[in-house]
Amino acid sequence: MKVAVVGATGMVGEVMLKVLEERNFPFTELMLVASERSVGKEIEFKNKTYKVIGLADAVASKPDVALFSAGGDTSLEWAPKFAEAGTTVIDNSSAWRMDATKKLVVPEINADQLTKDDKIIANPNCSTIQLVMILAPLHKKYGIKRIIVSTYQSITGTGLKAVKQLENELAGVKGEMAYPYPIHKNAIPHCDVFEENGYTKEEMKLVRETQKILDDRSIAVTATAVRIPTEGGHSESVNILM
Amino acid sequence: MKVAVVGATGMVGEVMLKVLEERNFPFTELMLVASERSVGKEIEFKNKTYKVIGLADAVASKPDVALFSAGGDTSLEWAPKFAEAGTTVIDNSSAWRMDATKKLVVPEINADQLTKDDKIIANPNCSTIQLVMILAPLHKKYGIKRIIVSTYQSITGTGLKAVKQLENELAGVKGEMAYPYPIHKNAIPHCDVFEENGYTKEEMKLVRETQKILDDRSIAVTATAVRIPTEGGHSESVNILM
Repeated sequence: MKVAVVGATGMVGEVMLKVLEERNFPFTELMLVASERSVGKEIEFKNKTYKVIGLADAVASKPDVALFSAGGDTSLEWAPKFAEAGTTVIDNSSAWRMDATKKLVVPEINADQLTKDDKIIANPNCSTIQLVMILAPLHKKYGIKRIIVSTYQSITGTGLKAVKQLENELAGVKGEMAYPYPIHKNAIPHCDVFEENGYTKEEMKLVRETQKILDDRSIAVTATAVRIPTEGGHSESVNILM
Repeated sequence: MKVAVVGATGMVGEVMLKVLEERNFPFTELMLVASERSVGKEIEFKNKTYKVIGLADAVASKPDVALFSAGGDTSLEWAPKFAEAGTTVIDNSSAWRMDATKKLVVPEINADQLTKDDKIIANPNCSTIQLVMILAPLHKKYGIKRIIVSTYQSITGTGLKAVKQLENELAGVKGEMAYPYPIHKNAIPHCDVFEENGYTKEEMKLVRETQKILDDRSIAVTATAVRIPTEGGHSESVNILM
């Protein structure tokens, strides 16, 4: 199996590689792929040095599987090109999640929906994954009417820029801001942009993705997503009415 | 009006004095009261220096009003002594809140319940106050069936010891811990002790105090109280079913 990791130099890409290494993931060839400015960069993996390659080269090599974590725009442009070359793309961005022709999969819940024809497979927002993991068996057994979820989301979800902002604030140094406000000693109830209905995009992801994964549009979901100065994990307060 | 501030050297006492000063609160005499170890300490108020006095001396001076913020045990022991001396005690601790013979008052909501005979008046937990302020008019107009609240509570609610813990963690210094875990870059879903039903005391305060202030035991309240590393303010995610 030829495996490509797209976005290998990013924060999530780094963790993906760590997990592939920990699980001793079987592959015959590994391609580390990133945008032009990272091409040629060297990355260590299992005591071997890999040179980062560009997206066009990766498509030409026709990997069997491409793990994408390179942002929505890169996914929109490049996932179809990989798919055309016969690659199965597993996409970590929000680009394809709500596309009616693509499946939104949490393996433990709905992997059985997948067929060989699914060449672009979306996985959900991080806050959604842990939420549906507890909801799925409850919904199956009792039927969920309503879910109220409030999140306590770490800044790592925003990316390296947010981690840098907190580091700067802790060091008392001025620098680029990932958020419109300080995050040290703060809680910002504003993850991603606001939508027309007054909820943020992050909040609406919890609504729409949950309904799609549980395959039930009748479940009422209301979400409040709050960024707090923690790193590397999201917590949620979840209330379920059955 | 003779006014006593009991617990004047504590974190909340300091803020009480600041507010009295800002509002130019009218009094003929001001007594700053604290426990034995703070007696004699000098505190500046409106360009005048006050000597902190003890509780027994304060009772003997028969103030008209005593603003208490000295912890539950001090309130339980001393509020009745002030009350016997004719003083009206306004208590900030949790000591009297759920006492059936005492009124739990948020002035904007139920101050009209007070009579001259109410000598010990409780005020609610900080998280409850801001919650019932929005609930009271909604409940009056529409009737609230169910409230789901998740809090994002600052460490100042725990007191000076918690502020010191965070400062130590930020400085990389070992010191006394207010929480069983680090609070820097953390969220602790555990405010106050656990009760028998699995909820924390802080969570059950939100349940019981809300029902008492809104004078309706039929309102279903479920609360999740989480401590996060902010200072000086609590936030809440509130969902209301009417």
